[in-house]
Amino acid sequence: MKQRILTGDRPTASLHIGHLVGSLRSRVALQREYDTFVLIADVQALTDHFEHPRKVRDNVLEVALDYLAVGLDQQSATFVVQSRIPEIAELTVFYLNLVTVSHLRQNPTVKAEIVQKGFGESVPAGFFVYPVSQAADITAFGAHLVPVGDDQLPMIEQTVEIVRRFNRLYAPVLVEPKALVGDVPRLPGLDGRPKMSKSAGNAIFLSDSADEVARKVKGMYTDPNHLTVEAPGSVEGNPVFAYLDAFDSDKQKVAELKAHYRRGGLGDVKVKRYLTEVLDATLTPIRERRRSFGRDLDEVERIVREGTRKGREVASETAASVKRAMHLDFFEARVH
Amino acid sequence: MKQRILTGDRPTASLHIGHLVGSLRSRVALQREYDTFVLIADVQALTDHFEHPRKVRDNVLEVALDYLAVGLDQQSATFVVQSRIPEIAELTVFYLNLVTVSHLRQNPTVKAEIVQKGFGESVPAGFFVYPVSQAADITAFGAHLVPVGDDQLPMIEQTVEIVRRFNRLYAPVLVEPKALVGDVPRLPGLDGRPKMSKSAGNAIFLSDSADEVARKVKGMYTDPNHLTVEAPGSVEGNPVFAYLDAFDSDKQKVAELKAHYRRGGLGDVKVKRYLTEVLDATLTPIRERRRSFGRDLDEVERIVREGTRKGREVASETAASVKRAMHLDFFEARVH
Repeated sequence: MKQRILTGDRPTASLHIGHLVGSLRSRVALQREYDTFVLIADVQALTDHFEHPRKVRDNVLEVALDYLAVGLDQQSATFVVQSRIPEIAELTVFYLNLVTVSHLRQNPTVKAEIVQKGFGESVPAGFFVYPVSQAADITAFGAHLVPVGDDQLPMIEQTVEIVRRFNRLYAPVLVEPKALVGDVPRLPGLDGRPKMSKSAGNAIFLSDSADEVARKVKGMYTDPNHLTVEAPGSVEGNPVFAYLDAFDSDKQKVAELKAHYRRGGLGDVKVKRYLTEVLDATLTPIRERRRSFGRDLDEVERIVREGTRKGREVASETAASVKRAMHLDFFEARVH
Repeated sequence: MKQRILTGDRPTASLHIGHLVGSLRSRVALQREYDTFVLIADVQALTDHFEHPRKVRDNVLEVALDYLAVGLDQQSATFVVQSRIPEIAELTVFYLNLVTVSHLRQNPTVKAEIVQKGFGESVPAGFFVYPVSQAADITAFGAHLVPVGDDQLPMIEQTVEIVRRFNRLYAPVLVEPKALVGDVPRLPGLDGRPKMSKSAGNAIFLSDSADEVARKVKGMYTDPNHLTVEAPGSVEGNPVFAYLDAFDSDKQKVAELKAHYRRGGLGDVKVKRYLTEVLDATLTPIRERRRSFGRDLDEVERIVREGTRKGREVASETAASVKRAMHLDFFEARVH
């Protein structure tokens, strides 16, 4: 039997080329080798977007469209809407007993995100405990592997701790997952900031038209000291070259462009025009698939609904085993 | 329509005469005036008994038997097994977003219990957030009133805060509950300690036989300075008189006994013999009903199963409204 992978996204915006580089491409590459479950994590999205529920809801379909557009295939990947799986909430509540508040407080990922989001002591409890609900996500679907970047390793460690504690305390019913630590390159934003995101307004979306992409690339941040074509420019911290590294399969060409830019004589306009072509080559087929699926949203909904049904089946079985192990089985267990 | 009440117990042991005085008698008195839901809170019991799940499971039926024995009536009261209502877990997860960690930390009831249970910083997260899961219990069943003692008021306040925040943020779908603050007398233990509990080994259970009750009363703590029959004794802090206050309806008789004990000449043996009679008068009909229901556990299970079915129906409706209000309704909401 194939090993199972769990991945997913919080549907707070449609996906951008940073996601493509960071996770989507590797998911597509892995989907035939592994039984892939992709969680559209609307409930988790609410842990820090609880004031914008409509945005979350509306992005469920956008994210599903993005998945199909990049080539995730309903035959290989199962798309699951998290809010439709009440078993995840049940597991979350059970697992909360197995983790202490001080342990959660020490989780490096949560710690960093609390600082980053400026929560301080007024961090919502839902956000604070999200490593526990992620453990519920992962174990609900019996995932063997979870593709993550280095920075997400503490989340998997937390899940492993919960699984071990549960299996020792009750019965060995939970699958202990492993992190599938891949190269998760992070694409800088159009403005050169380290991260691309919708909220920062520095993203190229998978749904952007060719014109939008051209316009966004034209406005990109480059080396601010590269004032004339003749002047030597810097490639480091220059997002134009970061994007070329990520999307141009012609590595030699990129190397030549970098050398040329460094020694002077290569203008930003020219290199940006080339980047636009490279991005077009990547995004055109994605855009076309997105448009094609977009013409039949009923079909997209059918795919997501079917995935969610299949996901619920798996999660119900897990929850049933978990409850039996915890003796939360009053009606079944009484001896007549 | 009748107002709805939510009450309940954590099934960690069968119930004792402290419960009878503290909550069961008033529930029986209220059950015809109000639509009464009684939650057998097995999931909540696990927040501090997660290492003893079998004990919790086995006590579900014991507690149900105790309810029927004291006169809670399936026509008037609905018995619901908490673990069978996944909607409570879902609501808990949603409400966790609406409460901050620092706010939970300040909850006086939780604070006191953390000290009392010796948790310190290593308090399990499930225990730490239990005011939120209680809010889920109360609102899942749309309870208007929750009978509590003074010490539990902060729990109801927490629920009211969550309800107000939810209704303002999403849509006014949750019922705002009120505390029904009654006289909740606390019966001291057989050993004179302020609280009766199974773990302290100082309880008279509703299921105890007449002989056990007689034996336990015989061994009760009284005034340690009351060394001879002739000596004056103290009524204060003397659990024998506390029990007489709680169970003897002949208040004048109790007043006379107290006066006699105080001035000397009334022996402990005699007053305990009288207490045994008083307790017998209270417990005999309870014991008989318990024995009678105990002969047909299938019927007890049928009652609990039927109550749980009815409770699930109410909770599902609440959860559906809650999800609609939070726009967690992807499959319903898409406009075709």
